[in-house]
Amino acid sequence: MKTILYPVPETWDGLCKRPVLENKNIDTTVRAIMKKVKTEGDRALLEFSKLFDKVAVTEMKVGKEEIEESDTHVPVKLRKAIIIAKKNIEMFHQAQNLKAKVIETMPGVRCWRKNVPVEKVGIYIPGGSAPLFSTVLMLAIPAKIAGCRQKILCTPPGADGKVDPVILYSAKLTGITEIYKIGGAQAIAAMAYGTETVPKVYKIFGPGNQYVTKAKEIALSEGIAIDVPAGPSEVLIIADSSADPEFIAADLLSQAEHGPDSQVILLTDSKKLIKKVNEETAKQLRDLPRKSIAGHSLLDSLAILFSSLDECIEFSNMYAPEHLIINTENAGELAGRVINAGSVFIGKYSCESAGDYASGPNHTLPTNGFATTYSGVSTDSFVKKITFQELSGEGLKNIGPSIELMAEAEKLLGHKKAVSVRLKKLKNV
Amino acid sequence: MKTILYPVPETWDGLCKRPVLENKNIDTTVRAIMKKVKTEGDRALLEFSKLFDKVAVTEMKVGKEEIEESDTHVPVKLRKAIIIAKKNIEMFHQAQNLKAKVIETMPGVRCWRKNVPVEKVGIYIPGGSAPLFSTVLMLAIPAKIAGCRQKILCTPPGADGKVDPVILYSAKLTGITEIYKIGGAQAIAAMAYGTETVPKVYKIFGPGNQYVTKAKEIALSEGIAIDVPAGPSEVLIIADSSADPEFIAADLLSQAEHGPDSQVILLTDSKKLIKKVNEETAKQLRDLPRKSIAGHSLLDSLAILFSSLDECIEFSNMYAPEHLIINTENAGELAGRVINAGSVFIGKYSCESAGDYASGPNHTLPTNGFATTYSGVSTDSFVKKITFQELSGEGLKNIGPSIELMAEAEKLLGHKKAVSVRLKKLKNV
Repeated sequence: MKTILYPVPETWDGLCKRPVLENKNIDTTVRAIMKKVKTEGDRALLEFSKLFDKVAVTEMKVGKEEIEESDTHVPVKLRKAIIIAKKNIEMFHQAQNLKAKVIETMPGVRCWRKNVPVEKVGIYIPGGSAPLFSTVLMLAIPAKIAGCRQKILCTPPGADGKVDPVILYSAKLTGITEIYKIGGAQAIAAMAYGTETVPKVYKIFGPGNQYVTKAKEIALSEGIAIDVPAGPSEVLIIADSSADPEFIAADLLSQAEHGPDSQVILLTDSKKLIKKVNEETAKQLRDLPRKSIAGHSLLDSLAILFSSLDECIEFSNMYAPEHLIINTENAGELAGRVINAGSVFIGKYSCESAGDYASGPNHTLPTNGFATTYSGVSTDSFVKKITFQELSGEGLKNIGPSIELMAEAEKLLGHKKAVSVRLKKLKNV
Repeated sequence: MKTILYPVPETWDGLCKRPVLENKNIDTTVRAIMKKVKTEGDRALLEFSKLFDKVAVTEMKVGKEEIEESDTHVPVKLRKAIIIAKKNIEMFHQAQNLKAKVIETMPGVRCWRKNVPVEKVGIYIPGGSAPLFSTVLMLAIPAKIAGCRQKILCTPPGADGKVDPVILYSAKLTGITEIYKIGGAQAIAAMAYGTETVPKVYKIFGPGNQYVTKAKEIALSEGIAIDVPAGPSEVLIIADSSADPEFIAADLLSQAEHGPDSQVILLTDSKKLIKKVNEETAKQLRDLPRKSIAGHSLLDSLAILFSSLDECIEFSNMYAPEHLIINTENAGELAGRVINAGSVFIGKYSCESAGDYASGPNHTLPTNGFATTYSGVSTDSFVKKITFQELSGEGLKNIGPSIELMAEAEKLLGHKKAVSVRLKKLKNV
């Protein structure tokens, strides 16, 4: 980790900058992939599967039986863990699904807002070295709670042309039965445009590599909604001298192992802690299977010493981290001062892993500074909040004259007339 | 209006299509304007003001005194109407500002979600033939309720170089005191990038012409959030034989007068109603000050006869209108079956004008079919919902083993270790 001592405020902005991953070739490549899927449909998908996944897929849709029997391939212990995580995630996301509440703003003017599910949603789950079934839970559970009618999932096939059973098991457990063996930018294109086999959806969720991210960005510009703008994952830890360096090191490494571009930052008011954390990190790194990735990410990571925890939280708010761990004695108080962050972990026992897997809140969060304006995925992400209003004759009498005056002042006489014709009839009743 | 009788379902998709306003020149022009503002700052803004608004602005920021004395230029009656609208909008949007509620997903695992305001927001209010002060209310009120720290407003100066007093009055009334005389794409650029005078914001709200819309689209692609994707305004009315043709005609015209590209659609199961509405519309059009605009828009509008109200609501859900008026005997029941719409007006006295100005719900809504996935502006639009979690030692003991198993199955051993080191220490306590 690079250590920075007492940076002056003028340098903070620079310290908050994320690395820019600009790659013009990606844009051209992804646009070409998407265009081909749009025009050629399934044929293009099968071709890309051969090319990128090195697999000759014959049937893109995963069969009913394969999904049904997925349980048998997942160890009982893991299934139990997944069921516990599911229950917690459900409980947290169910509480977000609020019933409409009528507000009578004036006598006879009844207004409310109702959660109505997005009809068709698509979930992308990346392949890679391990099956990311936790993201299946994080996206499929709120989609189910919201009541989305059509929920599909795309994920690349493994070398054996199959989808990992734990992905299938997690999908089945959370109500998804339409699963396609398609990966990468072509999967995003398939869900954005629809093909003979894959239905078009209105909103696309899920993480992925730079190609997937670019494809989602292009889909967004073409009118398909997406979950959150993406970027490399991040953790920022605020810790004081009371923190256990072993915990801090483990938390830093758990973020660093995500990828070589993971952003890892430690803020503290204790110089001693930085030293101890560095020692502890080096020690723990040795045993980490993904040590080359984590080590790479650590090279660019920062340990910043501030003169107070006040400065730490101020800097954190400027940085707007995806994950913020507050491991200080006054963690609860500092948490109350968070302005910009995706998700906050309070106190020494609240490690990011808890939220990544099982505590309840969602792990799909805004990165790259987007936490200044965007929220993480929640049940809200799977619904529209439609407003309704119902005016009685009395209601229109109460509010009508104000509307007439305002419409006239905006020179929209048609708007005024829509009220006037009704008020006239009401007089004659 | 074009009348279409009993369209077969295969044709519905075509009938739902919005006109495509593609103009490549706009893209080039707006990018040039934005680039100039980004590099030259205030100097570019003053130059564009001269060029586009035909006004030599010397001071872009509206002075304190000018805002203070705006009251005196707004008729008392109009001020009273605005205050009534403000109260209703406040009441409706205040109810959306929910307090955080702690969910204990397992003993010792406490999680919650908290509304935290977007720190810096910008509101754009277009110029044109009349001052759109109602949009000031619709955007400034939820911004205030959310608690946004910095709220700025840009609006083009009139021919006299001033901002209309009713805009200033509405802004002052709703807590906005930072107002800049800047219009068009250059105003969006100023708020997106910041200049010597105009502060950079995180999220930009407000309607505008094609240049403003394009500028917001470009800002979005560069990481600045925006309210909702924009398009021409729309109303879809579902009416049966019980509806008063005079009301329907007035509602259609109140939408048609917005602009020549306004989308106006009537769905009904009564052929007679279409005839009567046509007659009534022709009659009312004669007296409308904006009759040339409304007449133009009506030419492209549709009256569609279906064999049942079931088909009407089905078509409406496919069209996903910005505004949906349901003027039928069973309006409440039909409203319960709405899947895609921005805002719904139920029954004969609920005209769109009520929601446009004063009933309480927001009038900034998704158009162009975006109601399939997007919600209108609400207090939610001005906050992020940050999740928090706090695990006690007991909580981690309860949930830890599940996290360890799941992390291991995802081959993220660093994630597992963040739990294990803590559980180990807890054992030794």
